[in-house]
Amino acid sequence: MHNVTDAERAAMAELVRRAHDASHEPGKAGIAAALLCDGEIIAEGANHVHLQNNPTLHAEIVALGRAAEALDRPDLSDCTLLSTLQPCEMCLAAMRFAGINRVIFAARQENVPPRYFAFPHLKLSDFLGPDARFKAVGGLMEAEVLPLYEHGQE
Amino acid sequence: MHNVTDAERAAMAELVRRAHDASHEPGKAGIAAALLCDGEIIAEGANHVHLQNNPTLHAEIVALGRAAEALDRPDLSDCTLLSTLQPCEMCLAAMRFAGINRVIFAARQENVPPRYFAFPHLKLSDFLGPDARFKAVGGLMEAEVLPLYEHGQE
Repeated sequence: MHNVTDAERAAMAELVRRAHDASHEPGKAGIAAALLCDGEIIAEGANHVHLQNNPTLHAEIVALGRAAEALDRPDLSDCTLLSTLQPCEMCLAAMRFAGINRVIFAARQENVPPRYFAFPHLKLSDFLGPDARFKAVGGLMEAEVLPLYEHGQE
Repeated sequence: MHNVTDAERAAMAELVRRAHDASHEPGKAGIAAALLCDGEIIAEGANHVHLQNNPTLHAEIVALGRAAEALDRPDLSDCTLLSTLQPCEMCLAAMRFAGINRVIFAARQENVPPRYFAFPHLKLSDFLGPDARFKAVGGLMEAEVLPLYEHGQE
């Protein structure tokens, strides 16, 4: 159904577990992200917005920062971003600036409350635009995470 | 010409000075951002992408994080974001998530190279969209900073 590798599927299964675990931890949100590079997870991130009182620390931003630190370079063009929730506009732009061309996520925008997005009138297709290199795969293991996001409180 | 307050105009003049100073510092880029709250600058930021090898650390992201830390809350809805360069999609989304409704910048997208934006086919008007609360003022002191960005290397 989804055009993903075995390593990507295994990484998403791990993220789904982490998202469910995080949803029970105070101050965290049930969102998990990771950077996959050469089939290995090189960095993971949870949402730290309330943990650190910093509105920019979405799970994807945390994971991107850790991956760049781990590799000691801001270019992550050989990595794939995975998240349990469709990355918002901030995180999509951050990954593109890091040179990342591939993103895989579970819950899709049309199935979660609009508050997860800063500009809900813009859709993923608006961001993909004319850039043929930029590939997004949404809906992988979606059913397993939608209950986490249905009330929009994460 | 521009519908800005005296405090906003003074803050931008300060940012223009900082951007020119930063353009001479190794590892920094000639971009400066600040958060203005009740007429006072409560946080400033320079671009730390190469300084910290982190692609997410645009000047605006640095300033937003510092402002949230200074106020000890992720909601910055009583603040205005100022930047010497039109904020990219990442930074626009970050400010909206922080509840910020007003952004003022100097150099406008149409007058700088496309590499400052992750999705150059999207324009500011696409982000403003139907949200009448979200106000953007571009071009304030633009001539003073355009030479910093003409080659797209900052």
